[in-house]
Amino acid sequence: MEPTLEFIKSNEKRFLDELFNLLRIPSVSADSKYKGDVAKAAEFIKASLEQAGVDKAEICETKGHPIVYAEKMIDPKLKTVIIYGHYDVQPADPINLWNTPPFEPTIRDGKIFARGSCDDKGQVFMHVKAFESMMKTNSLPCNVKFMIEGEEEVGSSNLGEWIRENKKRLTGDVILISDTSILANDTPSIEVGLRGLSYVEVEVTGPNRDLHSGVYGGAVGNPIQVLCDMITSMKDKNNHITIPGFYDDVVELTKEERIELNKTPFDETDYKKDLGVDELVGETGFTSLERTGIRPTLELNGIWGGYTGEGSKTVLPSSAFAKISMRLVPNQSNAKITKLFTDHFNKIAPKSVKVKVTPHHGGEPVVTPTDSVAFKAAAKAMEKTFGKKPIPTRGGGSIPIVALFEKELGLKSVLMGFGLDSDLIHSPNEHYGVFNFMKGIETIPLFFRYYSEMSK
Amino acid sequence: MEPTLEFIKSNEKRFLDELFNLLRIPSVSADSKYKGDVAKAAEFIKASLEQAGVDKAEICETKGHPIVYAEKMIDPKLKTVIIYGHYDVQPADPINLWNTPPFEPTIRDGKIFARGSCDDKGQVFMHVKAFESMMKTNSLPCNVKFMIEGEEEVGSSNLGEWIRENKKRLTGDVILISDTSILANDTPSIEVGLRGLSYVEVEVTGPNRDLHSGVYGGAVGNPIQVLCDMITSMKDKNNHITIPGFYDDVVELTKEERIELNKTPFDETDYKKDLGVDELVGETGFTSLERTGIRPTLELNGIWGGYTGEGSKTVLPSSAFAKISMRLVPNQSNAKITKLFTDHFNKIAPKSVKVKVTPHHGGEPVVTPTDSVAFKAAAKAMEKTFGKKPIPTRGGGSIPIVALFEKELGLKSVLMGFGLDSDLIHSPNEHYGVFNFMKGIETIPLFFRYYSEMSK
Repeated sequence: MEPTLEFIKSNEKRFLDELFNLLRIPSVSADSKYKGDVAKAAEFIKASLEQAGVDKAEICETKGHPIVYAEKMIDPKLKTVIIYGHYDVQPADPINLWNTPPFEPTIRDGKIFARGSCDDKGQVFMHVKAFESMMKTNSLPCNVKFMIEGEEEVGSSNLGEWIRENKKRLTGDVILISDTSILANDTPSIEVGLRGLSYVEVEVTGPNRDLHSGVYGGAVGNPIQVLCDMITSMKDKNNHITIPGFYDDVVELTKEERIELNKTPFDETDYKKDLGVDELVGETGFTSLERTGIRPTLELNGIWGGYTGEGSKTVLPSSAFAKISMRLVPNQSNAKITKLFTDHFNKIAPKSVKVKVTPHHGGEPVVTPTDSVAFKAAAKAMEKTFGKKPIPTRGGGSIPIVALFEKELGLKSVLMGFGLDSDLIHSPNEHYGVFNFMKGIETIPLFFRYYSEMSK
Repeated sequence: MEPTLEFIKSNEKRFLDELFNLLRIPSVSADSKYKGDVAKAAEFIKASLEQAGVDKAEICETKGHPIVYAEKMIDPKLKTVIIYGHYDVQPADPINLWNTPPFEPTIRDGKIFARGSCDDKGQVFMHVKAFESMMKTNSLPCNVKFMIEGEEEVGSSNLGEWIRENKKRLTGDVILISDTSILANDTPSIEVGLRGLSYVEVEVTGPNRDLHSGVYGGAVGNPIQVLCDMITSMKDKNNHITIPGFYDDVVELTKEERIELNKTPFDETDYKKDLGVDELVGETGFTSLERTGIRPTLELNGIWGGYTGEGSKTVLPSSAFAKISMRLVPNQSNAKITKLFTDHFNKIAPKSVKVKVTPHHGGEPVVTPTDSVAFKAAAKAMEKTFGKKPIPTRGGGSIPIVALFEKELGLKSVLMGFGLDSDLIHSPNEHYGVFNFMKGIETIPLFFRYYSEMSK
């Protein structure tokens, strides 16, 4: 790899200059006034890939923003890596909280400050530059396909259809994604699981109108009380969720897998101090890392009902509401859990109230294998560049796309991201370390090399 | 009583005309822009009392709106009845929901529509006209004192001080108040108990900031969940309140008193139908009338926390809040119950959260005797005019003034009101039946007569 690494190191300044040009395009997918800029960013990606050496690159129109597709086929008998990423960004609001303008990238303290610097333009561009470096030094060991979309920040609503229509050209062996984080710059890690989601809103209605709590209080079921009672009943004293069948499909980890997971650096004292709490709460029998990574949850995201203004009002309200989300783990399914919740909520409602459950949105949980050649190659590549074995981590959040690839293309993903949780993605002053950007460009060619070698 | 009754019947039109003049004055005590009108209403009451024949009438200034005081002393050896009422009214908002303007009284279907027609100008004016009728027909059998305030709708904040400063001239034997309702025009009743109140707001704080429910959910105590659990734990399966000592001071009714109370007409089917509920809920072992009348309660008046807007947000919030009121019965005390609640709430809070209890306002419960001469006189007077024995009822609401009179003057009250629960007091289209207004004027002189006779 010496020539490739040499090439990367000697081109650092140019790579950054080019990335800055990409970051200057305000490709905000959520806001239609940036439609032209989103298209401009797609063109920029296409041109960069062409300049880097792909056989062909294409802007694929969708009902929304376009997908940039490109490929470099060396030999159909070799392995094919499909790289996924997105060139669209979150809105920059609130603009006034940025220390420097969001679309005028600047480097301070070794960090590139700009909207999209980490999520995901910076991480996508690592792949473009790593590919270019392999091409320029004749070291690309397998086929590559790029699939860079422009709607990730608005739910990837047209990606599924495009994938179904393009299944033939999307044949490959693994999906490589850089859109996640490592634990720290001296602690590399690879996310190997993402929780799914079932999000519902519930409504509990008692009397047909707000009542005077003095006149009726004591004789009429109070919907706030009933809602609280129902919520409380959905967990037992061990914080197990009591919805029948809730855990039926949960894949339990092996003892070894749990030991591995718990190697993730985690200091409970620091964690509590950072949150300002004296005690952590969760499911009995599991560590905090397990509770957030490998166990399903039921969390209250919001509650409201009755009088919530200043002072006092003696009302016995007609209705009370809550927003409840359940994080899911393999092999739970959003649709099934939403149905189990709804049936249970209806069943436990006392006769004094009527209840209604409205599903909001959801996503399926995914887990990526740690025993695959691709994962091992990624781990070996990171170990080489960071000087430390990466820790497999289970993220609490959700990336629905990973489940989509598995379902539509039958392909597993490797989540080899290089960001940090402190990069302020989705917030003002998003940034991405120059260290991380360059470490990504150096690690990716190693992944390609090890993946090819280990696949033989 | 024939001449008095004759006088009343022949003056009906004039009485209504005079009442209408009082109702035309927008004496809204809550809104400072009506300060002049509140003063005008006080003058109107003073002039009416003078015209009716009191020895002297006086406008007593306070820090807020004035109190009209007047007396007619026939003989210091005779009994003295103190009449309490208020000439201020609730705001008329929302004005656009009134069918006719709130300060232009009109009669439709035998009902006087105007703000204050029932609460309390109409009921106060019954006393003025009943007094006049007794004076004009030489039938007043005892001394009378009038104490008509202008701040009842804003909490009677200056009445207590005025009473303490005027204890000497407020000597008497009983307080007579017409500011309550009867069950129906063919079912007279007298309220004999009012519940007290302890109103608190609680705050439960977990982590020091809103967290991502995917990243932290499952490992950190969710303040909404904790609040719900704490609320639920405060009642057992029989809907008994579990706060230690909560029931210690509750005066249990005798079997006979409960039998008497349960004679109040109450149709559970109609009650449920009116409220649109399939089942009533309350403390095991008590009827609905008992649950609202003689038992203390703990009701949720409001709850809020986390994301309550449209759609979904995956937040694990920092805090959750609730407004909780407890209705109290004799001999519970607001201060003691508020302390018991606060201590208990702090005690049951898990270590994962911090809690705060803020008392809002309160009032002491009262019960008026049913074995007193005054009560028996009121009951006999109503039986005479309605042709039916009135039913003693226990109101669920609170009139803090009654406890004040008992504490400061050592006097019991008789709550001989003539309104109906359907009179829409505090709401648009408040009204008061001409039947009820005239029935009040006819009943009051009988009360005076029986009270004097039975006291001998």
